[in-house]
Amino acid sequence: MKILVINAGSSSLKYQLYDMTDESVLAKGLVERIGMDSSILTHKPTGRSEVTEVSEILEHTTAIRKVLALLTDPDHGVIGSVDEIEAVGHRVVHGGEFFSESALVDGDVKSKIRQLFDLAPLHNPASMMGIKASEANMPNVPQVVVFDTAFHQTMPEHAYLYAIPRVLYKKHKVRRYGAHGTSHDFVSKTAAEFLDRPLEDLKIIVCHIGNGASITAVKGGESVDTSMGMTPLEGLMMGTRSGDLDPAIVPYVMNKEELTVSEVNSMLNKHSGLLAISGISSDMREITEGMQNGDANSKLAFDMYEYRLRKYIGSYAAAMNGVDVIAFTAGVGENSVVLRQKVCENLTYLGVELDEKLNEVRSGEPRRISSANSKVQVLVIPTNEELVIARDTHRIVQGSKS
Amino acid sequence: MKILVINAGSSSLKYQLYDMTDESVLAKGLVERIGMDSSILTHKPTGRSEVTEVSEILEHTTAIRKVLALLTDPDHGVIGSVDEIEAVGHRVVHGGEFFSESALVDGDVKSKIRQLFDLAPLHNPASMMGIKASEANMPNVPQVVVFDTAFHQTMPEHAYLYAIPRVLYKKHKVRRYGAHGTSHDFVSKTAAEFLDRPLEDLKIIVCHIGNGASITAVKGGESVDTSMGMTPLEGLMMGTRSGDLDPAIVPYVMNKEELTVSEVNSMLNKHSGLLAISGISSDMREITEGMQNGDANSKLAFDMYEYRLRKYIGSYAAAMNGVDVIAFTAGVGENSVVLRQKVCENLTYLGVELDEKLNEVRSGEPRRISSANSKVQVLVIPTNEELVIARDTHRIVQGSKS
Repeated sequence: MKILVINAGSSSLKYQLYDMTDESVLAKGLVERIGMDSSILTHKPTGRSEVTEVSEILEHTTAIRKVLALLTDPDHGVIGSVDEIEAVGHRVVHGGEFFSESALVDGDVKSKIRQLFDLAPLHNPASMMGIKASEANMPNVPQVVVFDTAFHQTMPEHAYLYAIPRVLYKKHKVRRYGAHGTSHDFVSKTAAEFLDRPLEDLKIIVCHIGNGASITAVKGGESVDTSMGMTPLEGLMMGTRSGDLDPAIVPYVMNKEELTVSEVNSMLNKHSGLLAISGISSDMREITEGMQNGDANSKLAFDMYEYRLRKYIGSYAAAMNGVDVIAFTAGVGENSVVLRQKVCENLTYLGVELDEKLNEVRSGEPRRISSANSKVQVLVIPTNEELVIARDTHRIVQGSKS
Repeated sequence: MKILVINAGSSSLKYQLYDMTDESVLAKGLVERIGMDSSILTHKPTGRSEVTEVSEILEHTTAIRKVLALLTDPDHGVIGSVDEIEAVGHRVVHGGEFFSESALVDGDVKSKIRQLFDLAPLHNPASMMGIKASEANMPNVPQVVVFDTAFHQTMPEHAYLYAIPRVLYKKHKVRRYGAHGTSHDFVSKTAAEFLDRPLEDLKIIVCHIGNGASITAVKGGESVDTSMGMTPLEGLMMGTRSGDLDPAIVPYVMNKEELTVSEVNSMLNKHSGLLAISGISSDMREITEGMQNGDANSKLAFDMYEYRLRKYIGSYAAAMNGVDVIAFTAGVGENSVVLRQKVCENLTYLGVELDEKLNEVRSGEPRRISSANSKVQVLVIPTNEELVIARDTHRIVQGSKS
């Protein structure tokens, strides 16, 4: 079965075409600047050279039509006909309390995604555009939605509620939802497989740290707590997001600087985090380089980032009364040798013992970086959210046929 | 030396008169409803019966004049003349970055307290009224200010900065300041004395949980992190305060409910926490009773409170790479047997082992509640913020004379 995985943003669309017989990627690509002038489509068939097209792409339906044309193109294509695509899997950021699993798209599912526009005003409308554009281009192909929040729906009430008037939960659905669920799910399962231990027996802390970052306490395979909250702003310090903050700072700064709600949101989401503290970059690679070159602001940004991550690890160890596995994933987690080293250096009280040599190994495979004596297994597990979406789509479409 | 300790609120004034030869309290009391109709003065000379006066007290100067009259009253007084009061110690909530210690009041000190009105708009103006009222009534008596924030000025930059644009720190002094500093200081010192171990060698987590609540990581006698932030809203769940929250919830709720800055502040500070979740009370005693009577909302409030406290303990263990002592103090910390039990039950991964019998002992003295085998010493240390203020005042006034 060939499955097209789509991740639609408001002005962008990422895609990967999977052959599920061996889970190989046949092609992937990205459409940028949809609705602006000179949209860019970058298409990469596996093992062949990349193609870039610049044109006017006014909306997502056109974007997908062009992607399908390239996928079936005599020169750059990887399939003979669009009919070979048996299902489409969509990444959807917010599933609210409606979805604790992936779902086959129908009228009811679309209506629920629409009801969540309020909670994810930037993301869910974009996902809906992706779904509609796929339906328009592939009317008879089943569509599946895979939610970033679904894995976290197992959190207990005492972990997902905020200590604010309960009417805000009832009326406006204010609660913790979390994000990166497909990644936390994939990485915790892969960790258990890698260790050859039953997932049910394990207390795992998954650190998904990329440009966005979240950390999840996974107990017996279920998310019991996660650092992103009602929105992706809460939790760890990120590339450009503040993470945790005295909530009183928000009205204080709005007052002092005469900011609107949308301005303060933009400040905290786009102009904070590593970028604000370093004054240089939101990219951990540049921060690390700056620090190693003696830049004090880069060092401060790194120290804050490491310290806050470490405190969350400690906090989730307390949430689960212990931790068996700490798993690092995503851009920073998979690649920052120095961040992993600094974090682990200060977790010896948990019995963490890093093997510095193993920590320096670079590979695309799951690997252990703790020593043989370490009481806690520290792992690096490359994440693959697209693959999870393809697998879920495959499973659901097969299930719906039987 | 006799020292009067004053804690002035905007419409209240608490006092205690100490005899520093034996640190005994000669009398204490409270003036309420200053500036409203029928102000109430409750005066309690030690070992004698309480007196209550209802009258019109328009401002703090009158309040202190009436307090001094009662302290020297033939029937209810404890001293022969106001001249016996050799110093006054004032609790001041916010010392900003100006004060890392208590200080003798002079023009410069008052000007600095005034510059901090912005950061503590409810508290510092009230403290200033208390200082001025004392000066008016006792013009030749030295006044000392003891700050709630001073103990936390040892926090490193990576712990006190927020990951937001740095101009907000430079221009508006947005950073973590913490609170309850006199209590965290007193309790950590008392814990070391009680254990007969050098404070310098200890990693102590002090849980000051009363109606307001904060938790501090004290390493080698210095505060290295604390849960209250720029304001007392951040951190633990409290009686009526939310504690930690996705900061994006603030603008979201302002928008949805059309709240002003002051309304949202009021909601998060006065109508959240235990009160909002239980729907019954902000008082842990009533919550516990409700829970024991099978009330689901009380149980949820308790669970959230306990869970969040436990996560902070875990987080500060990670901040210090370990913990030797966990000390509970203030109303809830000193008295809630069940809260301490539930917290410790889930900290066995740290080597915490509670002695259930010792945990049930009620006493006004410092005591151990962990078992002989516990790797972490768990203590209950009754706090005494007024005594710390009296001692600091004593020390500073003596120092200024020599």
